[in-house]
Parts: sequence; C-alpha cells; structure tokens
Amino acid sequence: MNELSQAAAMAGTVAFAATAVIAMAPRGIDLLTAMVMGLLTAIGGGTVRDLILGQPVFWSKDISYLWISLLASIITFWGYRLMSRRRVVALLLYLDAVGIALFAIQGAAKAWSLGFGLPLAPILLGIITAIGGGLIRDMLAGRDNLLMRRELYAIPVSAGCVAYGVLMTATPGSQNLIALLCMAFIFLFRAGAIRWKLEVPDWFRLSDNQSHG
Amino acid sequence: MNELSQAAAMAGTVAFAATAVIAMAPRGIDLLTAMVMGLLTAIGGGTVRDLILGQPVFWSKDISYLWISLLASIITFWGYRLMSRRRVVALLLYLDAVGIALFAIQGAAKAWSLGFGLPLAPILLGIITAIGGGLIRDMLAGRDNLLMRRELYAIPVSAGCVAYGVLMTATPGSQNLIALLCMAFIFLFRAGAIRWKLEVPDWFRLSDNQSHG
Amino acid sequence: MNELSQAAAMAGTVAFAATAVIAMAPRGIDLLTAMVMGLLTAIGGGTVRDLILGQPVFWSKDISYLWISLLASIITFWGYRLMSRRRVVALLLYLDAVGIALFAIQGAAKAWSLGFGLPLAPILLGIITAIGGGLIRDMLAGRDNLLMRRELYAIPVSAGCVAYGVLMTATPGSQNLIALLCMAFIFLFRAGAIRWKLEVPDWFRLSDNQSHG
Repeated sequence: MNELSQAAAMAGTVAFAATAVIAMAPRGIDLLTAMVMGLLTAIGGGTVRDLILGQPVFWSKDISYLWISLLASIITFWGYRLMSRRRVVALLLYLDAVGIALFAIQGAAKAWSLGFGLPLAPILLGIITAIGGGLIRDMLAGRDNLLMRRELYAIPVSAGCVAYGVLMTATPGSQNLIALLCMAFIFLFRAGAIRWKLEVPDWFRLSDNQSHG
Repeated sequence: MNELSQAAAMAGTVAFAATAVIAMAPRGIDLLTAMVMGLLTAIGGGTVRDLILGQPVFWSKDISYLWISLLASIITFWGYRLMSRRRVVALLLYLDAVGIALFAIQGAAKAWSLGFGLPLAPILLGIITAIGGGLIRDMLAGRDNLLMRRELYAIPVSAGCVAYGVLMTATPGSQNLIALLCMAFIFLFRAGAIRWKLEVPDWFRLSDNQSHG
Repeated sequence: MNELSQAAAMAGTVAFAATAVIAMAPRGIDLLTAMVMGLLTAIGGGTVRDLILGQPVFWSKDISYLWISLLASIITFWGYRLMSRRRVVALLLYLDAVGIALFAIQGAAKAWSLGFGLPLAPILLGIITAIGGGLIRDMLAGRDNLLMRRELYAIPVSAGCVAYGVLMTATPGSQNLIALLCMAFIFLFRAGAIRWKLEVPDWFRLSDNQSHG
C-alpha cells in the first residue's frame, strides 16, 4: 500500500514537471528555464503547504522529489518531439490526474493529522498542495492561470478536498478509507473531464455579459 | 474596544473578499475561482506577515476568517448584480478602507511587540499585511497590480505605517493611542481619496516622458 | 575578508534595488512603488530562502539591508536622469553581477552548513537567493520574467551553484576556497555576458519552430 502511494507520488511528480515543460515550450525556453519551471510546478504546492503548516519542507528530508522533477524536465526538454506527441501528452495528463488526486488528499491529511485549523484549513491546504505549483508556474509564465481557464481542473480537486473534510468530520475513525475514496473521486472526476473534454458549466460561471451588465 | 476591533476586522475581511470577486468578475470567473481569489485576497497579506515573523498563521487558530472570506465571496458571486451596484461598491470601498487601516496597524503592532527588526521591519510588515493579499490577487489575475495604478491606495497605508514607526520610537509608552491615531489617519486619508477620487500627484511620479528622456 | 564580503553584499543590494527601479521606470511609477519594488528585489530571494530553511529572515537581525535598499531606491528614483545614463547603468549591471555571485554562493553555503537536503537543495536555494527577488519583481511588474529572456543571467548563477555543490561533495574540507572560486566563476561568467552581450545559445533552447513542429 505504502509502496503503491510512493509509486503514484513519483508518477505524479514526473507528470507535473513534464506537463509544465510542455506548456512552456511554445514560448521558446532554454534548458535551465525548463528545469526551474518543472521543479517549481512539481514541488511548489507542497512547499507552500509546509511553510504554512510550519513544518520542514517535504523535500528537505527526501531529495528524490528534486531529482525526479529535474530528470523529468530534462527528458521532456531534450525529447520534446517525442514527449509532445498526442498520445504521450494524453498519458501525462492522466498521470497528472493521479498526481493531483494523491497530493490533494495527502496535503489535506497532513494538515488534519496536525489538527491545523479543522475542518476548513486542511481542505484549503489540500487544494494548495495540488494546484499551488501550477499557479506559481502560470504566474511566472505570465499566462492566464489554471483557475481562470474553463478546463475542469481545480474543481475536481476542490470537490475531493471538501468531501474529505466532510467525511473526516462525520466519521473520523476510518481515515484510510476516506482518503482512498476521495483520491479515487478526484482522479475519476478529472479523468472524465480529460476524456470527454468537460468544461466548467455556464451556470457555475459569471459570464462576461452578466458581469458587464 | 476589543469587540469593536473584532467587528472592524470582520468588516474588513468581508470587504477584501467581496471587492476581489467584483474586480475579477468582468473576466468571467466561476464560483470556485471567486472563492479562491476572495480568500487569498482576504488572508494573503496576514499569512505572508506571519510566515516572515515565524509565527503560526493567524487563521490556524481562528478559522472564522476563512469562513467569513468564503461566505463573502459566495454571496458576492451569486448576488453579483446586487453587489456590483454603484452604492454597494461604494460601501465596500469604505469597508475596505476600514480593513486596510486596521490590518496595517495590527500587522505593524504584532511585529513591534515581537521586537522584530525595529523600527523598519514593523513598518514593512504592516504594509504587507494590508496590501499583500491584493498584490497576490493582482498577480494571479495577471493585471496591473495595485502599486502601479494611480489610485491612492498603498500610499495612505504606507504613510500610516511610517507614522506608527516614528511615533512608537518617539513615545513607546502610549501604544494604544498611537495605534488608534494611525488607523484613523489611514482610514481618513483613504476615504478622502475614494470620496474625491484623489490620484498619486505628478511630482510623486516618474512620468513616461521623463523616464524615456 | 569578512569586511570585503560585507562591502560586496552592500554593493549588491544597492545594485539590486537600483536596477529594479530603472527597469520599472518606463512604466511610470511613483516613489512608493519604486521603494517597494527596490526592496522586494533586493531582499526577496534571501527571504524566500530563509523561509524554506526555517530560519529567521536575514533582515530581522540586521535591518541595514532594509535601509540600504530603500535609500538606493529613493536615490535612483529622484536621480533617475543621472542613474539611467548609460555609464551608470553599466556600473550597476556589474555591481549586480557582484551581487548575484555573492548571494548565490552565500545562500548555497547557508543551506549546506545546515545540512539541508544535500547536495541538491543548497544548489536550488543558492539560485533562489540570487534570482528570487528578480522573479518576484518581474511577476509584480507583469513582464516576461528573467528566466524567459535570452540574456545570460540565471545560467551563470546556476552553473556556479552546481559547481559549488559538486566541489563541496568532492572535497568538503576546503569550503572557503570553493566558495571564493564559485563566486569568481559566476561573476566572470556574468560580466563576460554583459561585456560581450552574450545570449543563451540556440542549441540550449527549444526554438519556436521546433516546439510548434
């Protein structure tokens, strides 16, 4: 079980770094920029979470996350033609979905186990863990951030973290089961969004007309 | 007195979150983005201050700030037509002025009471507490940040924090009086800027001509 | 020796703040914005490093860095016509090169001496110390960040930090000599890039054609 989650964390880290490089590539980046962007995207969210929790940042104890992020960035950069093929990108998107599912619930669980601002703060920190790195990447890249795109990305993460908070408040005994369920929920929701190109529904948005009206 | 400052903090938090949602709405946002932006704007500045001070973030002890920010964001989103009416926006702007006055001086006072880098660091941390959330919001929204607009917003905050630093150095005994005076100063300065649409005066700026010359 | 590094740190701080103000000036900024941007650029990188290391931020113990950044920002603002002359800008660029060389290796050495995630984390934290403030400035200014420009800026810093990590792993005894060598390397690499207007070579980049291909 623990090894499975280790493997998922590695896959997620690879996907975070690789998709960051692929997203930046059309702007004409160099290898170093690719490495920095890949690294920040992969470890940024968990780093902000640990700073807010007042805990040592997770990669100070286990630098394998740094190595994996850097390697994935370098391989994506040098192998860009291969890595940007439709099928590889699709695979990376699904691995990214594994990553956000795992990191969101792990982040929420870390805050929960510290009793940090229950029940709302763990939900917030789970979301930050999963999408914080992507937000930093988008700010550095100067592009519309992932919250402002119509893609269903932050919403599955947030729904899963809210579910985690609600279930943990209701039945705090079964935390492993709850964590597994919420991870599966996030992954399936996000995977469905990728598969069927789901977007944020209009009733959930303020359209431009409304807001100018 | 303490209850008054509690009420002012709540009003300020509501105003921070609501004005963030109103500022973002013309770009077409969804509910989740509204909640995240409202929350970050409302608690971002105080969070950065606490991280720099090495203190537990203020909302880990009292999650009511999280609830209030989220509720204000949701209400502003669903009630956008009402909340974006001229009179409501004007009210929110004045509440926002209450918020920056309170948070700036509370932030400076927190750093001062810890003896943190006196007298300059408390001034800086007061400014960060009041406008840090707005800066994060502007960076995420990819728009010109509040420092670069001609509106008198950061200047009242900064002037009040400098006054606090000077007065606390001169007469450290009367800290409650000084705090009250400086909050009143920031609020009145900012409220005057809203009321008479004051802008940063030209002699205080490098105009484009000068800078290109 | 210690006084020399003190003098270099001051010169670097002045250069960081002054070049930030000069970079922002064409957008028409006011004095306060100049001061905030100068300050964030000068102390931002080291602040992020200290937060990640879990150490008190360096300017809480010695606020002279704050004074120097603010003074340099003010002087650059009021003396913009003088400070933006070609020769003064060139001087500032070389002082900035001194600054990044010093701060990068000091940052890496601080992490190394704490045994923080050896050997990879000190390399990363050295880079963050040197260029983090500039990245924050670019994000706030809403312009292409320094990683995405073709100028050779982040690459000398990163090469020097990697060299530091490799040499410290290989011969940990001679840390002062290694630090000096790596600082000299960064400075000379960057100074050469300024002098001969060197850019990131094409083979080190994903060109737009390739990435769209």
